[in-house]
Formats: sequence, structure tokens, C-alpha cells
Amino acid sequence: MNSRLKSIILELRQRKLNGLIVSLPANISYLVYAESRDSYLLVSEKENIYFTDSRYSEEAGIFLKNNARLKECNGGIFKHIAESVKELGLTDVGIEERYMPFAEFSKIKELAKGSFNLIPTYGIVEGKRVVKDASEIVKIKQAMEITSSSLEYIKKLLAPGIKEIEVAGELERFMRYKGASGSSFDIIVGSGPNSSQPHHLSGQRKLRDNEPVLIDFGVDCQGYKTDLTRVLFLGKIKVLARKVYDIVLRAQEQAIKRVAPGAEMAEIDRVARRFIAKNGYAKNFTHNLGHGVGLEVHEEPRISGNESTAVRPGMVFTIEPGIYLPGKFGIRIEDMVLVTNKGCEVLSGFINK
Amino acid sequence: MNSRLKSIILELRQRKLNGLIVSLPANISYLVYAESRDSYLLVSEKENIYFTDSRYSEEAGIFLKNNARLKECNGGIFKHIAESVKELGLTDVGIEERYMPFAEFSKIKELAKGSFNLIPTYGIVEGKRVVKDASEIVKIKQAMEITSSSLEYIKKLLAPGIKEIEVAGELERFMRYKGASGSSFDIIVGSGPNSSQPHHLSGQRKLRDNEPVLIDFGVDCQGYKTDLTRVLFLGKIKVLARKVYDIVLRAQEQAIKRVAPGAEMAEIDRVARRFIAKNGYAKNFTHNLGHGVGLEVHEEPRISGNESTAVRPGMVFTIEPGIYLPGKFGIRIEDMVLVTNKGCEVLSGFINK
Repeated sequence: MNSRLKSIILELRQRKLNGLIVSLPANISYLVYAESRDSYLLVSEKENIYFTDSRYSEEAGIFLKNNARLKECNGGIFKHIAESVKELGLTDVGIEERYMPFAEFSKIKELAKGSFNLIPTYGIVEGKRVVKDASEIVKIKQAMEITSSSLEYIKKLLAPGIKEIEVAGELERFMRYKGASGSSFDIIVGSGPNSSQPHHLSGQRKLRDNEPVLIDFGVDCQGYKTDLTRVLFLGKIKVLARKVYDIVLRAQEQAIKRVAPGAEMAEIDRVARRFIAKNGYAKNFTHNLGHGVGLEVHEEPRISGNESTAVRPGMVFTIEPGIYLPGKFGIRIEDMVLVTNKGCEVLSGFINK
Repeated sequence: MNSRLKSIILELRQRKLNGLIVSLPANISYLVYAESRDSYLLVSEKENIYFTDSRYSEEAGIFLKNNARLKECNGGIFKHIAESVKELGLTDVGIEERYMPFAEFSKIKELAKGSFNLIPTYGIVEGKRVVKDASEIVKIKQAMEITSSSLEYIKKLLAPGIKEIEVAGELERFMRYKGASGSSFDIIVGSGPNSSQPHHLSGQRKLRDNEPVLIDFGVDCQGYKTDLTRVLFLGKIKVLARKVYDIVLRAQEQAIKRVAPGAEMAEIDRVARRFIAKNGYAKNFTHNLGHGVGLEVHEEPRISGNESTAVRPGMVFTIEPGIYLPGKFGIRIEDMVLVTNKGCEVLSGFINK
């Protein structure tokens, strides 16, 4: 059994469980060291079983290696899962309550016919994923290289008259030539006033001179994601935009300086938020400061005012303060940091701001 | 209240419910006539409320119009939902059991403190979405035009030495110039033996002469999706590939002929499956014949051997038989059909096979 699965078994024992039905694709991918889709993984001391259907069984047969046994299920996947739980003699089986739909929970419970208990859990696999190992950091850095070269490429193409969605299309194309399997989320290209919507969908608006263009994108490479935001300017930068940009940049710098083992997440968020508030834009910074990135583009930890836990070496997350002036423009600057033993390494630090 | 919401209210009454918490994005989009993300919709006779957070509230304020009232929730979205249910005096509220995670169900139930019941439901909104209205068909046809021109474009670029993932990248770029907001799913480009994995991920393999290339892709345009598969050949078509291609094509033709109001879904599936079996490839057609397409790329109905219900005018679904020879190659031909009063219209019929 691989070391990640072993660590889950230990965690299950502490929680008085003897099995776990893993349903979040990123959690499964983490445990079997491969990209997984439309599947379930039953983890137990005796055996680990991977359930999928005929669409994926050929590729799963190749990538699973000895990490788990493949069970091809055509129709009735939950019946197969329930039967395996019974065959292995498991009595208390965790489910991932944030990812398993109510109907699946009900179905498995019904099929159990009282022969085992289903226990809602959260964070068993996520708790391991939150600290990245060396092999994961290598992959994230490779993904960041592609992110950087994609941004450099697009900078040369930006010009008045090009549509937001066309910028997104060029990024989508280029990153695949560089080795990415795709985007880590729908690319945000917000031009002019559209930049004030933090999660704008790239649309038909054409870029114009003397306006900011906010580009928030990331790549997926070997299963690992990146997330980066830059605001670029075509032509002149107006006075207000420059002022707001500088405030966001300095808020980010101060927050990054605070990142070190032991620092509370809430405290890191507060550093940026206070600086923005002091400059009069408290109401215009409307989201958390950051989030973890790894096999998912949004994962643990959350760098938010409510999180009193401390950051740990090996965590990878974004620092992305923003100021949004509805109807005018928005500025967000987002980088990814890796917590080190003494402070942090800005993984996207080599990309110009 | 718009007519779609009214039809849901009628359906709720029949099910003895006085409210529904809608959580599937496509269902919400359908009911508010706009693309929706990270939100919930509470439907009730008295009022319809749209819950989202600050990231999306500016755009939601614009697109919601008078379809629902916007409630911005920063943190504690379920608390807001439970409070609204209480304020409206709703006693029996449906949830979408296939889409609501167990944890959300538990949370809302806890917040209800017995003041209302949560009832698992399935298919309330999907039951309406399964038959497309005229405005939806117009959008699907527009999306199919983009799909067609994207395929024509890529045909000219295909050549030995180009990687699968680069083909995907070129499609991603081109469709956005033509008006798509993006792909409807991860593009499948399977070259040579990779084509035998029905849901292959486009990878680093280079196209080669005298091999088939299976391309399965679709676009998202105004929220509506397409799904199309063609197998193209570089150089010569080998004898076995031609033979298998012809069997799949004829199986598809026979199935399409059977599509008409009143035809059972299982029967349509059986027509293609029997023809393939008669030719000796029963074990190599490993998935259902088709699936509905609309606001989601996979939605109701399922054209499968288990579905005894009949097709109805206005349904839109794929017909996609396939034969997969592991290690050798796979052939799948996929078109989208619209059920008419007398038979069906092949929406992708103008795209060469």
C-alpha cells in the first residue's frame, strides 16, 4: 500500500472508522497518483478498490498500477460499492459529506441494510493534501512556468479591438502547446468596467486604449493547478487606476511578508485588509485574501478573517487582494506562495507586476 | 413570475410541496434565463429568491431582472436560505437530492430546527428542461453552426506530427473567435490506439499517417451546449478501420430512422446495438447509445437499454454508437437529433461523416 493510503488508514483508525468511500476526484487522484474521473475509491486496511465504468476502465487499468484494485461497474455502481464493503467486513465507513450527494448517501445506506454504518466525515484526505510534498511542488513549479510563458505570449497580442473572449482563446491554445492539459478554471478577462466583477466571464467586449485589463487564469499540468492574476494597461494609466493599483500591490507585499510558519491565516488576511481600509477602500475588498491551490484550483487552506489556524511549511496558497469600483474598474493582484521553514517563496514571483 | 417558474409551482403543488431549493446550476439558469454560478434559488408561490455571494452579485443584479430577488450572502449562505424559508412560511420544501451534498442537507435541516421539512426530490426542473422550446432550439442551432465551422477549421490543420493536445488547443481558440464562450467538456482527441478509450484525455501523442483520429467535442454558446464526434483519417484508411466505420455508421443510420414521437428509448438503443452485435462486435459497444443535450452536455433523457419511456417532440439528444478495439482503435460517430412531430431532424446532419 502506498504511503498516502497508509496515512489515511491511520487517520481512519483515530476516527474509529475501518473504511472510507472517497468521492472527490482530486482526493482519489491524490491517493492513486493519477488523474481520476467519474470514479469512487474504497479505502480500507485490507484492500483498496477503485470503482469506475467501461468508459474509463481501459485507462484506469493502466494508471492504477498496484495502488488499488480496479472494479468495472456497468450500472449500479453503488451496489458494487455496498457489496465490497460487506465482503471486506467493514462496519463503520466514512463518506465525504461535502461531496457525496444526498441521493448517493441514501442509496448506499439502503443497500447496506444495516450491515454497516455510514459516517459523515470531512477533511480526511484534504488534511493530507494541504501540505505538499517535494514531487508535488516540482509539478506546481512546472505548471507555473507554463502560466508565465502564456502570460508573456498574451501580453504581445493585447491590443485595442481584440475581444475579451479572444484573449481567453489565445491563452487556451498557447498553454496546450506548452504542455498544459488545459485551463484550471474559466479564464477571466475583464476589460475596463468589466474588471470590477471579481468573477467576470470573458465576453464579447473589445479591449480599448487607456483601460485596465484584468486577466485571471491558471493551467492544469500533470493534475496540478495554478492561479494567477495580473492587471495590464493598454495606453496610459489613469491617475485613479494607478493609485488603486499601488494600494493593492502594497497590501499584497505586506501580506506576503507576514507569511511564515506559525502565522495565523486570519492575521495574514488582516494585514492586507487593514492596509486597504486605511486607504479608504474597506468596502471594495469583498472576498477572502487567498485559498490553497494544488490538485484543485480552490482547496484548503482558506486565507480568511475567520481562520484562526496557523500556516505550515509546504502549504501552497494564493495572496490576492483586490479593490473593485463597480462601473469603473477593478484591480486584483494574485500570486501563489509556498510556505517554507522560515517564511515563504513566491512561486509566481518571477512574473512581472 | 415567468412561465418556467410558474410551471415549477404547479409541479410542486402536485407533489404537496410549497417550496424548492434549486442547486444545480443548469436548473437555476433555466429558471432565471441567465447563466448562473455558485448560487441557490428558492422557488415558492410567494417569492423567488436568488442567493449568491459578493463575487457574483454585481452581474446577478444585472441578469436577474424580475425573475427573482437577489440576496447577497457573505458567509452562511445556508443560514440565509433557512431564514428565507421561515420568513415565507414554507413548511415542505424540496431539495434536489442528486445535487445537494449530504453536508448541505444536514446543515439546512439543523438550521430549520423543525420549522420546515426538507423533502428529497428528483427531476422537477429536469422534467421541464427535457423538452426544448423554440428559443432554446434556436440557440442550440447557433451553437451547432460554431461546432461545424470549428471542425472544418481543424480538418485543414490536421497533419502527422501534430499532438492531440495541440488539436484541442486550436479548437479551443477557434470556437471562441466564432462566438462560443468555451468548450462544453474537455475535448477528446484520440489518435491511433488512443481512440479505443471512449473518454480519452487529449495528450502528448502525435498524429500519424494512416491512422484514425477520433475528435469528440462541443461548444457552449449562450449557455447551450453541443456534442459531436467524428473520426477522421490521415492518409489511407486500413481495411479493418473502414469495415468497422461502416458498421458504426449504418448502426447510427438505423437508430436515427427509429427516432419519432412514441418510440421507446430502449428500442432506439436496441436497433443500433443489435446491428453491431449481428456484425460480431457486441462486446465492443460498451456505453449507452445517447444522452440529452441542452443547458448541460449530459442531461435527460438517457437513450439506454433500460429506459422504457417514449421520446417526445422537442427532445434533443445524441445518437452515438461506437466500436472499441482496445490496443487497436475505436470508432464512434455522434450526432445530435431534435425530435419533431413526425420523426427527427439531425441538427448536425449538415456536417460531413
